[in-house]
Amino acid sequence: MKTLHPRRFAFCLFLFFGVLMHAPTMCAQEGSPLPVMPLPAHTVQGEGQFLIDGSFSVGLEGYTDSRLMSGKRRFLDILSRETGIPLPDEAQANQASFMIKTAGASDPVQDLGENESYHLEISATRVQLTAPNPLGVLHGFETFLQLVRTTPQGFSVPAVTIDDEPRFPWRGLMIDVGRHFMPVSVIERNLDGMEAVKLNVFHWHLSDDQGFRVESKRFPLLQEKGSGGLYYTQKQIGEVIQYARDRGIRVVPEFDMPCHTTSWLVGYPHLGSGAGPTQIESRWGIFDAAIDPTQEGTYQFLNQFIGEMTELFPDAYFHIGGDECDGKEWDANPRIKEFMRAHGLQNDAALQSYFTGRVQKLVAGHHKIMEGWDEVLQPDTPRDVVIQSWRGQTGLAGAARQGNRVLLSAGYYIDLNQSAAQHYLVDPLGGDSGSLTPEEKARVLGGEATMWSEFTTPENIDSRIWPRTAAIAERLWSPQEVVDVSSMYRRLAIVSLKLEYYGLEHRSSARLMLRRLSGESDPQFLNVLAAVVQPPEGYARGQLKEYRNFTPLNRLVDAVPPESEAARKFNDLAKLIVAGKASPQQWQEARNWLLLWRDNDARLQPLLEGSDLTAELIPVSHTLAQVASIGLQALDDLQNHRVVNTAAVQRNMELLKIAEKPEAVLLDMIAPSAELLVQASGTH
Amino acid sequence: MKTLHPRRFAFCLFLFFGVLMHAPTMCAQEGSPLPVMPLPAHTVQGEGQFLIDGSFSVGLEGYTDSRLMSGKRRFLDILSRETGIPLPDEAQANQASFMIKTAGASDPVQDLGENESYHLEISATRVQLTAPNPLGVLHGFETFLQLVRTTPQGFSVPAVTIDDEPRFPWRGLMIDVGRHFMPVSVIERNLDGMEAVKLNVFHWHLSDDQGFRVESKRFPLLQEKGSGGLYYTQKQIGEVIQYARDRGIRVVPEFDMPCHTTSWLVGYPHLGSGAGPTQIESRWGIFDAAIDPTQEGTYQFLNQFIGEMTELFPDAYFHIGGDECDGKEWDANPRIKEFMRAHGLQNDAALQSYFTGRVQKLVAGHHKIMEGWDEVLQPDTPRDVVIQSWRGQTGLAGAARQGNRVLLSAGYYIDLNQSAAQHYLVDPLGGDSGSLTPEEKARVLGGEATMWSEFTTPENIDSRIWPRTAAIAERLWSPQEVVDVSSMYRRLAIVSLKLEYYGLEHRSSARLMLRRLSGESDPQFLNVLAAVVQPPEGYARGQLKEYRNFTPLNRLVDAVPPESEAARKFNDLAKLIVAGKASPQQWQEARNWLLLWRDNDARLQPLLEGSDLTAELIPVSHTLAQVASIGLQALDDLQNHRVVNTAAVQRNMELLKIAEKPEAVLLDMIAPSAELLVQASGTH
Repeated sequence: MKTLHPRRFAFCLFLFFGVLMHAPTMCAQEGSPLPVMPLPAHTVQGEGQFLIDGSFSVGLEGYTDSRLMSGKRRFLDILSRETGIPLPDEAQANQASFMIKTAGASDPVQDLGENESYHLEISATRVQLTAPNPLGVLHGFETFLQLVRTTPQGFSVPAVTIDDEPRFPWRGLMIDVGRHFMPVSVIERNLDGMEAVKLNVFHWHLSDDQGFRVESKRFPLLQEKGSGGLYYTQKQIGEVIQYARDRGIRVVPEFDMPCHTTSWLVGYPHLGSGAGPTQIESRWGIFDAAIDPTQEGTYQFLNQFIGEMTELFPDAYFHIGGDECDGKEWDANPRIKEFMRAHGLQNDAALQSYFTGRVQKLVAGHHKIMEGWDEVLQPDTPRDVVIQSWRGQTGLAGAARQGNRVLLSAGYYIDLNQSAAQHYLVDPLGGDSGSLTPEEKARVLGGEATMWSEFTTPENIDSRIWPRTAAIAERLWSPQEVVDVSSMYRRLAIVSLKLEYYGLEHRSSARLMLRRLSGESDPQFLNVLAAVVQPPEGYARGQLKEYRNFTPLNRLVDAVPPESEAARKFNDLAKLIVAGKASPQQWQEARNWLLLWRDNDARLQPLLEGSDLTAELIPVSHTLAQVASIGLQALDDLQNHRVVNTAAVQRNMELLKIAEKPEAVLLDMIAPSAELLVQASGTH
Repeated sequence: MKTLHPRRFAFCLFLFFGVLMHAPTMCAQEGSPLPVMPLPAHTVQGEGQFLIDGSFSVGLEGYTDSRLMSGKRRFLDILSRETGIPLPDEAQANQASFMIKTAGASDPVQDLGENESYHLEISATRVQLTAPNPLGVLHGFETFLQLVRTTPQGFSVPAVTIDDEPRFPWRGLMIDVGRHFMPVSVIERNLDGMEAVKLNVFHWHLSDDQGFRVESKRFPLLQEKGSGGLYYTQKQIGEVIQYARDRGIRVVPEFDMPCHTTSWLVGYPHLGSGAGPTQIESRWGIFDAAIDPTQEGTYQFLNQFIGEMTELFPDAYFHIGGDECDGKEWDANPRIKEFMRAHGLQNDAALQSYFTGRVQKLVAGHHKIMEGWDEVLQPDTPRDVVIQSWRGQTGLAGAARQGNRVLLSAGYYIDLNQSAAQHYLVDPLGGDSGSLTPEEKARVLGGEATMWSEFTTPENIDSRIWPRTAAIAERLWSPQEVVDVSSMYRRLAIVSLKLEYYGLEHRSSARLMLRRLSGESDPQFLNVLAAVVQPPEGYARGQLKEYRNFTPLNRLVDAVPPESEAARKFNDLAKLIVAGKASPQQWQEARNWLLLWRDNDARLQPLLEGSDLTAELIPVSHTLAQVASIGLQALDDLQNHRVVNTAAVQRNMELLKIAEKPEAVLLDMIAPSAELLVQASGTH
């Protein structure tokens, strides 16, 4: 018999509550709304279900092309991953159980406002998908894949008739590859995710102070000196564009100028307004480096550069950035000041406006439509320029009134660790835009989620984008009146699972990251803590400590999702309890959770010192135990109708307020729920 | 406040015992052997540790080439994934903390028996890796990566001096892509895994009755009619060969002939011995289709084909299969019978021998050395032909005595669901080979794990290969006296975790598969069952029901690993208890496990009917509960020194024997341990 090592045999009895609360299921559920996201425009549920087995096959009728063929192949691949059923692509068109009828081609380069509608009819015996062009077919495929569920009879989709089309024609995701470079594989799997939720614009933020990420053959020092070796070749760019087109997604490149341009100036310092930088920026923030708008050489360079890039990127739109100029280099350069005086440019904004006006003409000269952030808008900006609003809905509405077409990104900054609900309830036609005339409203093209990448790496980017971006995708696709947050979260949980079949790592990455930072193969107690903390909203992190481009992002804050699902659900429970609407079972459930959190600290503490990456979590774990203890006491008081005096309530509230402050750049998300319980215990 | 759905709020208090028993850790452990696999030939542990932080850099001295550069880049990438520390490749050679000194080049085409040794010296301040050629450097990188662990001071490797070289020069993994095609991405990630454990031959089983998987430009009907569209282009083959070479791995192609050739004959029926097949085989098994060895046209075809393939595959060895001829088509063909009579070929084996002899000359004519399975060996087989033994060590020893070089695969059939320990204890120089003379022993080149793919798909292949193949890799690399099974399992668990950093899916695939087959997002109770069942050993599965090439492999048997880790550990516990060596804590641990398994059934049963894929598990779950109940009773009896009468013991043993029979193609792996307990309860 083999010798065992008893000291390694520590057996741990662990009350595991896990994620069972509200656990989403892909089993058929009677009476629930369809688990589709974005919700279709019109749905009529039918009788029965269509079973998926090895005889499933797809036939194409009418117009066909290579994109439809490859779309069909990918559809079968994902369906095969969803079911584990091999689906070789061998169907005879006339024998297929899933028939597709496409009326005609879509534009050679996908255009803004192309018809994306589709009609999907599922009966117990057959599926019919019809669309005016391949874009609708691709969307119909995704709706079908989301409908697939497990039943006692096998995998199936419910009988249903869906007529669907988007509310807005521009539904985008921006990824910043300037600050942290993202390899092609990361871009491609996120394009798969975009297709799954019917987003149709990939906005590629390709240059910033920290990196210039595209090969220029005309100006090779851009990538050679401006990227640290991390850039896309033109061949790769072409492949990504084709990959996106196959998925019904336009690719809009952004080259941010005249500021956010340190990386340009390392190779081409003569373009700059000050003493040229000698290396790309390694810090985060707003920097002074700015292109010199007063030199004719600048425009000659840009004309050639834009010429090369507009040839590389076929989309009709070309984004020139234009945000966040601090003007310091301009102010410090007497020659530039003199130019401003001579041309009656009263301030830096006017100088930028002059620059933008000239660049717009260069862009137009290459037959593209310019797009830029809020700052590019001036009274004389041509009407075809598209304004992307990052500063708020007021700016958006103003631009639309002025006659420009607009996109909303304020409210969709997914790097800021806001909840899916917060993003979901921001409407491009809400706020100030609600008062626009119908004509002005028609200028609101849609919106874009923006994935700025200061604190995002190829490893954790998926968990920053997904699943929350699916809520934004629903806002931009579904009818305006679709605003039920509970329904959104229920469907979001299912879509989040489905996205794993597309190869996205938003759920799996945390497992490896938590293992790595703890050194434990199965860090169960750390998981308990990780499930109820989240990074603070907004820009707080960068203010707590200096981060640079190569600072390791391998802490707990980098591993946990931006929104704690467990804390959100516990908060729902606390609200029920406080409202006197909780069942005995729910009271018990709340108690069990609080016990788990209170007792986790004693189990976790001895392990935290084993790794320098978890040592910072010692107070975080301790805080969770304290919060849970206070919450438990309040729960007891409430349950026993005990009168709690004001001083005690106040003392606990003060403790909880302290617990709400970030530690190790993490918020304890149970504290607000404990506050609800404590406050209620003092008032009933 | 949002409305909650109380009926979905079922809270489940779940005693989770999980995998904490023996949970491997990547934290530093004093006194343990180094967690390296294969164990190095010579190790001297030093004092202190070398810390890995953002300043870590690697410099190359002496000979250098593109393979060393890309190897260094991959090393930094994996190290970065292990630590979460960005490691840009910017070191100046003379400032690097990790210095590599390579004496010279390795052969342009990696050759059998090339020097693979390396010397790795790690102190608290620097790392020195020296090797005669790049192969040793690659191996040294992998040893270093396995040494990385988490400590309170950060990520580090212990100070150590290692002198290492392999015991056998041929350490292979065969993958059968004939029965289930495996995309290039699957092959490549498994090449990464091979590199991690220092395997150096990828044997690519490229054709079989069910598919011909390589593009032939000379004979395009091979892939066009023989693959169902699933084959590698020559460009892809070239890429895989380069990918393997970069990792110090040779690629040996196998084209199985004269039998296992249905897929050849669909396109080229004139090569066949009977009426040509009209389609590739969709069933598993041994089929009659055989190349006609009596036609000169056969050899003209093969000469051209082998010429094309030997140009495509640069390795010096060329595998022609040669296994499992049933001879039925030969016997049924009067013309072939007449040929045999005319040439004095007394039986089918003699005819095959005639064929093999001619093919060997063709192979030699193209300057390659032939390799084949046992069956190709005849008294007059040229001495340079390499025999791969799948039938046993007796055949291996016989071939070595006859003067041929040999490889062992019998005992390394990883498709047969044997334990890592079983494979581990098979030694190429064990059994009959132990009695070979030193000269004969020198002909034993090593061995190969064989991944036949009847029941393996791209989705689950990683879990069939890993981590068990690491145990075989250790057998083939490490000194013969390294045979401690407990040590092997401890290190195997750590290597299994590390392999995830290489992108292997052996641990993650089950999660998605269990979710899919249950329809639950977090199938916790199914996980409990899944952790203690495993597929039966050997060829039992194919005898239980007819499977074909497109039969879905999406059941529990396809998701669980071939070896239950929980059951193995419980068995260790049961042995301790029976031997009277268990601590009170271990008694309690055993009880907790049995309670978990006993009580799981009531929780799991209601869920199993929700999916047609889990319905078959109803009796499996029930059996586990029964086994655990019997085990619990025996545990009680043992603990209380209660005398159990023989009849009761016998009745329980009979019940447990029934429980040992497969249900839903799954074995209950707790039953053997329960038998230990029951038997002990009747004897003390």
